[in-house]
Amino acid sequence: MPEKHYLFTPGPTQLPPEVLEVLARPAIHPRGPAFKQPYERVLGRLKEVFRTEHDVLLFSSSGTGAFESAVANLTEPGERALVVSSGSFGERWADMATRYGADVDHLRYAWGETPDPVDAQARAAGAAVVYVVHSETSTGVVSDVEALAAAAKDAGALVVVDAISSIGAVQCETDAWGLDVVVCGSQKALMTPPGLGLVSVSPAALAKARETSTPRFYFDWERTREAQAKLDTSFTLAVPQVLGLDVALGLLLREGLEAAFERHVRLGRATRAGIKAMGLELASPDEDRSAVVTTVHAPDELDVSVFLLDLCERLGVQLIGGQGEWSGKVFRIGHLGWFDIFDLTTALVAVEDGLAAAGVEIERRVAVAAALEAYEAARV
Amino acid sequence: MPEKHYLFTPGPTQLPPEVLEVLARPAIHPRGPAFKQPYERVLGRLKEVFRTEHDVLLFSSSGTGAFESAVANLTEPGERALVVSSGSFGERWADMATRYGADVDHLRYAWGETPDPVDAQARAAGAAVVYVVHSETSTGVVSDVEALAAAAKDAGALVVVDAISSIGAVQCETDAWGLDVVVCGSQKALMTPPGLGLVSVSPAALAKARETSTPRFYFDWERTREAQAKLDTSFTLAVPQVLGLDVALGLLLREGLEAAFERHVRLGRATRAGIKAMGLELASPDEDRSAVVTTVHAPDELDVSVFLLDLCERLGVQLIGGQGEWSGKVFRIGHLGWFDIFDLTTALVAVEDGLAAAGVEIERRVAVAAALEAYEAARV
Repeated sequence: MPEKHYLFTPGPTQLPPEVLEVLARPAIHPRGPAFKQPYERVLGRLKEVFRTEHDVLLFSSSGTGAFESAVANLTEPGERALVVSSGSFGERWADMATRYGADVDHLRYAWGETPDPVDAQARAAGAAVVYVVHSETSTGVVSDVEALAAAAKDAGALVVVDAISSIGAVQCETDAWGLDVVVCGSQKALMTPPGLGLVSVSPAALAKARETSTPRFYFDWERTREAQAKLDTSFTLAVPQVLGLDVALGLLLREGLEAAFERHVRLGRATRAGIKAMGLELASPDEDRSAVVTTVHAPDELDVSVFLLDLCERLGVQLIGGQGEWSGKVFRIGHLGWFDIFDLTTALVAVEDGLAAAGVEIERRVAVAAALEAYEAARV
Repeated sequence: MPEKHYLFTPGPTQLPPEVLEVLARPAIHPRGPAFKQPYERVLGRLKEVFRTEHDVLLFSSSGTGAFESAVANLTEPGERALVVSSGSFGERWADMATRYGADVDHLRYAWGETPDPVDAQARAAGAAVVYVVHSETSTGVVSDVEALAAAAKDAGALVVVDAISSIGAVQCETDAWGLDVVVCGSQKALMTPPGLGLVSVSPAALAKARETSTPRFYFDWERTREAQAKLDTSFTLAVPQVLGLDVALGLLLREGLEAAFERHVRLGRATRAGIKAMGLELASPDEDRSAVVTTVHAPDELDVSVFLLDLCERLGVQLIGGQGEWSGKVFRIGHLGWFDIFDLTTALVAVEDGLAAAGVEIERRVAVAAALEAYEAARV
């Protein structure tokens, strides 16, 4: 039979057919009349999904590019910045801010730890900008961004949030929590291919950007904001992704954000229950907030890359391993975006099969039942 | 009947159905096994199309973003840079280099003029980098990049070429002409949607980049080069565009680059012949090299934006007006990428129809015949 493929990575994620369909439409010009309506709708829907009254800026870039727009617009060399990290992406932002000449205070937790807002409170004094990660995709930790932001605001700092894999999956209240800058990518819970970075920017952040001297052009916020205000684009946008995002955001808003958040909580519980039932150990926290990606400690005897390749080649199932210092030590199952319970039972069956094929001793034929039970028990 | 739409802009351009088809494929992970083969093929095909032995780096960005990678990697603040401009994009690069702290000598021609390599020769002394535009999409001028590059090399400068709309349309010999950096975008003659910037980088340019202190992260060449060498990606790539580019480059190489260049020359001649036959005046040069876009002086009595909107709404034909100082004064017909003679006869008929509807006095019913005659006469 023709092969079936299953993508269970924490981004890029699976794409609904409604999104795929618009990607293949004949080209339109992003400054022509055919683009105006979907573009205006995307900009409006993004505000709803980010829960902000302010502009959400679009860049043709990855999430890292969009995050760099925050560093490039907000960094005045020599000024203090606090970066809170507990994994690969937080450490990347500390590196990036350092390269841009910020005087970086790096509040660095071990990978897999959850940042403590009390620590941030103690370290935020004197910082012009505080960078925090909402969903640390490398570990599965989702931090208490509301409390971290409050600590930063108490110190008078601007708060920049890496919400690349959290927007649309777990609650992120841009305006209510006072988040000055919230960065997201199209290819995570927003169910769109990679290629668009999304950045909400508060008036205070825009004002700061007007004062900083760091050179930037492509990622300049003011230029992009001015263009978007006229439904123009400063530079040619990735048109298929904008059209796809329009459709995907429509699907998300039709489900309802609260319903989507609940679905992610239930899928997270189900996945963790299945993993634990096999006798495996979680590397991501066993708590409801961490509903984006489940990270699993690889048993000592497992060669993770061989295991993952076997799942791809034999079963058509794509999971992913660890990044950086967790490379070879964990594997990750994404459940953000267009995921339902059947995706997770498939992923769990595949993990079970692959581990058994690799000769790892696990409990067999219990994971799916445990996952389904947890999923049902979590019904609100 | 269902409306038909015709996109005749100088980028984004029309997409062959073979390219559209792969855009709508289910998501794959850019670090998974399914991506390796098309990715490796794209990197190889890009070298063929750029005519270089060196790496062509991929960025998820527009062409401007890719060009900024050159400025960010090569600028040491205070060092002299010569920017040769004769239109919107050249002026953008002068602005960009200035913002990055280069000591910019701006050799600025009036819009529509063709840069003279003798002038560049006289001004290049002392410049660390010379920035030139191959195809100035805002005017239709294609410059003699070979001679401009020779002038820069004589002065010991690195040469950066904006070939965003020229690669695949007109001859650009990256290695043979000693072009250190050549920047292209996916959405022009490469027949792929916008979202990928492509940058070939010579060893000398890479060596210079290792010495410059300008902050950059997303657009850092060395980081991207190292990742590509392992068939990895430094940051998540716009997967649909990479898959589309693979197919599009295959189509272009199957046609053959020389055949594609000849086709563009013939389409340029045909378009200019048709425009002149109507009694309109060209704003782009009436020479074979300028085979990418034809720019037409708008008759005084014409409201260009009303005319263009009428073509869109009444005929489904999308042309585009002028940028910057040529806004309202010209309109442009693209003929780069997936264009054949029928596209141009359609465009000419639409222009004729739209001008007549706007009450402009032109010669009627002669443009298509003149275009076809020029097209045939140009057969090699």
